Amino acid sequence: MGARQHVVIVGGGFGGLYAARRLARERDVDVTVVDKQNYHLFQPLLYQVATAGLSAGDIASPIRGILRKTRNVTVHMGEAAAVNLAAKTLQLSDGASLSYDHLILAAGVRHSYFGHTEWERFAPGLKSIDDALEMRRRVLLAFERAEVEPDPKEREALLTFVVVGGGPTGVELAGALSELSRFTFARDFHNIDPSRARIVLVEAGPRVVPAFREKLSQKALESLQKLGVEVRLGTLVTKVDEHGVMLGGEALPARTVLWAAGVEASPLAKSLGVPLDRAGRVVVNEDLSLPGHPEVYCIGDLSSFKGPDGHPLPGLAPVAIQQGKHVGENVAAAVRGNAKKPFTYFDKGTMATIGRAAGIAQSGKLELWGLLGWLGWLFIHVIFLIGFRNRLLVLLEWTWAYATYQRGARLIIGHDSAEAAPAPAQLPAPRQREAVPVRTQAP
Amino acid sequence: MGARQHVVIVGGGFGGLYAARRLARERDVDVTVVDKQNYHLFQPLLYQVATAGLSAGDIASPIRGILRKTRNVTVHMGEAAAVNLAAKTLQLSDGASLSYDHLILAAGVRHSYFGHTEWERFAPGLKSIDDALEMRRRVLLAFERAEVEPDPKEREALLTFVVVGGGPTGVELAGALSELSRFTFARDFHNIDPSRARIVLVEAGPRVVPAFREKLSQKALESLQKLGVEVRLGTLVTKVDEHGVMLGGEALPARTVLWAAGVEASPLAKSLGVPLDRAGRVVVNEDLSLPGHPEVYCIGDLSSFKGPDGHPLPGLAPVAIQQGKHVGENVAAAVRGNAKKPFTYFDKGTMATIGRAAGIAQSGKLELWGLLGWLGWLFIHVIFLIGFRNRLLVLLEWTWAYATYQRGARLIIGHDSAEAAPAPAQLPAPRQREAVPVRTQAP
Repeated sequence: MGARQHVVIVGGGFGGLYAARRLARERDVDVTVVDKQNYHLFQPLLYQVATAGLSAGDIASPIRGILRKTRNVTVHMGEAAAVNLAAKTLQLSDGASLSYDHLILAAGVRHSYFGHTEWERFAPGLKSIDDALEMRRRVLLAFERAEVEPDPKEREALLTFVVVGGGPTGVELAGALSELSRFTFARDFHNIDPSRARIVLVEAGPRVVPAFREKLSQKALESLQKLGVEVRLGTLVTKVDEHGVMLGGEALPARTVLWAAGVEASPLAKSLGVPLDRAGRVVVNEDLSLPGHPEVYCIGDLSSFKGPDGHPLPGLAPVAIQQGKHVGENVAAAVRGNAKKPFTYFDKGTMATIGRAAGIAQSGKLELWGLLGWLGWLFIHVIFLIGFRNRLLVLLEWTWAYATYQRGARLIIGHDSAEAAPAPAQLPAPRQREAVPVRTQAP
Repeated sequence: MGARQHVVIVGGGFGGLYAARRLARERDVDVTVVDKQNYHLFQPLLYQVATAGLSAGDIASPIRGILRKTRNVTVHMGEAAAVNLAAKTLQLSDGASLSYDHLILAAGVRHSYFGHTEWERFAPGLKSIDDALEMRRRVLLAFERAEVEPDPKEREALLTFVVVGGGPTGVELAGALSELSRFTFARDFHNIDPSRARIVLVEAGPRVVPAFREKLSQKALESLQKLGVEVRLGTLVTKVDEHGVMLGGEALPARTVLWAAGVEASPLAKSLGVPLDRAGRVVVNEDLSLPGHPEVYCIGDLSSFKGPDGHPLPGLAPVAIQQGKHVGENVAAAVRGNAKKPFTYFDKGTMATIGRAAGIAQSGKLELWGLLGWLGWLFIHVIFLIGFRNRLLVLLEWTWAYATYQRGARLIIGHDSAEAAPAPAQLPAPRQREAVPVRTQAP
């Protein structure tokens, strides 16, 4: 197999990075990792950035830095636009194209609005650092605006936060929002009582975190309720606009709506012209390759691979990591002329956290909840963080936050996008409103 | 003086915060701090955020958090638009107005393009977190684009970084950029050699950091040159556009131009209708009040106060801090019916840093440079950082960065603004360019 072969990997998430690391050990292979961002993102902690608990830099590492020691791996910052299976080229959106001998697609998912793309501007999702910073901006700004808002109705809408979707992300967001308003902000405002903010979690199904066993769903529900989160089960969001959300016939005025309801595969999947599942994910063979294209693989959230229970494997980091390693092995085998192996998933368990010192975890027959579930969650997430520096800093941030209820990243940065509430940029005609706060000139 | 009096402070920088802290001790006073940002910014370290050394959260603290324990201080997030001296009201740009008994203006400065506002889109300045993140985005993106750029001329322009202005900010930016390219990126790219990036520092005057004594200017120049920075003294920038800069008749192609050349006072100063100095700063009385308006004060960068040498005091944190404390005292005196005192500045010294382990500092007759100057700088800046958490984290970041040459915040976030290089968002007609890197398919 003398000639060097070129492996192109799309996506610097868990799947792509683990595949690249495995292939870095192969002598006859050059690897190009393509990602539209310059950083690898520890997505399980993205909700912490969105709720001002962590800084962006704490959960993201430059891909070049991670792969620095791999001499045969090149990082290409760019957006994969389409695959030409016949010509064996990957087309980038800047016009360049990369030819490949082996292609590993690990491009992940985007949030999906079930056809209602017009909802996106009112209810941002949570997939990238930019998403998280936008969520953080909206959340913090809502409290700031409520503080100076004279109209009680508008103030109530500003202090109503709706999280759509009761999966792990939705539950984690709602829990963190509740703690932000009840503890972090406890003494920070004079005209509003942040602890009276309404956090509403809307879930269409009959229970939260349905991927967990029923008992743990119940524990998660109890933890949320203890934090004052209003959980609305079996409730469909039928409309999202500048006024808030419609829950069936009920209008719920809210200035901040966060979307954690659904995801769909990247448009790249559609460009392949192969069968996709209902969620737009690519149905793959036993060895994670594409039907009819043994040189092309799909892994992680982008791929649909049936687990032992007959359902596609969930979109979790451990799945992507195991698939990344496996596909690295299979490409190495193919380069050497050896046989490829079918993938099997080793389920180590699942976990989620609901605010300070409450979590749920299941692994095999083990079930943890409450403080124990939270400690398990903390331990696993910190040891999984890529890069020593991040691990240490995140632990420090958390210890600090735990001891003081303070949050380290309470910055409102960036600008109002067109859809958000009016920005205080131009000077309107002065309203004859009394000075806020009204305590001015008290006797 | 029975009735409670209302003090409005515009700006949550050093001056505003120290004034607020002093007045928090007064029983008969209510204070409102107005700032368009929700955070206090440690500006002396902003260049570290712009060059990926620190995260935004490391040098910024929420103003509400800082003032949490001051029961008589309210924080109002909003932009001060104009002062009505006759009516004693401050007009905000969202239409609200605050009436005051005493007004302290500490709104700081913005960067100035000497009338060439059209240069701003090509050469961002450095005054806010958003500015710093925009600089960081441009710098990191330039290297990423150079890595995949086939045209050698364009690649050269992408790897040319021009810093306009040889004051402390310009010197610090140039030094940090040089280290970024020579050390941090040393092994991160395959198609370009980041260490060959050109860093050009342009200064109109005869020496860098002219606020320092000549000997230290010389030391700073030597440190810069040792880092490979091209320093162009006595050189005027006559044009900035998408191609780069014009230095007199010489065109210098550069895709990244950073502005550290000049500042001007906020538009608020103009709204006062009182005498301003050449830089647009408000000329104040000996007690820091406005001529003819003993109840209005101007402090920090916004004010023009003659020092012992006859020149206005420089725009430094210690000046703002001392003036903030002093004006707090004077307002407290006025409330109690006591006499106000003239302000005198106690000059503790000035310092700047030029990359890793090189700095300059002068204090009285003391002059430090090199490693000693840097250690002095490090010590002072870390102990000055407001808030224990930031101090600890920043020290940790620096220790880590020093030991490894790595930088903790190498994230490209945000989007291309209209003026920047074309974003890879739409799919242009495919160019028949060969795969980059060209090592693909090597024999």
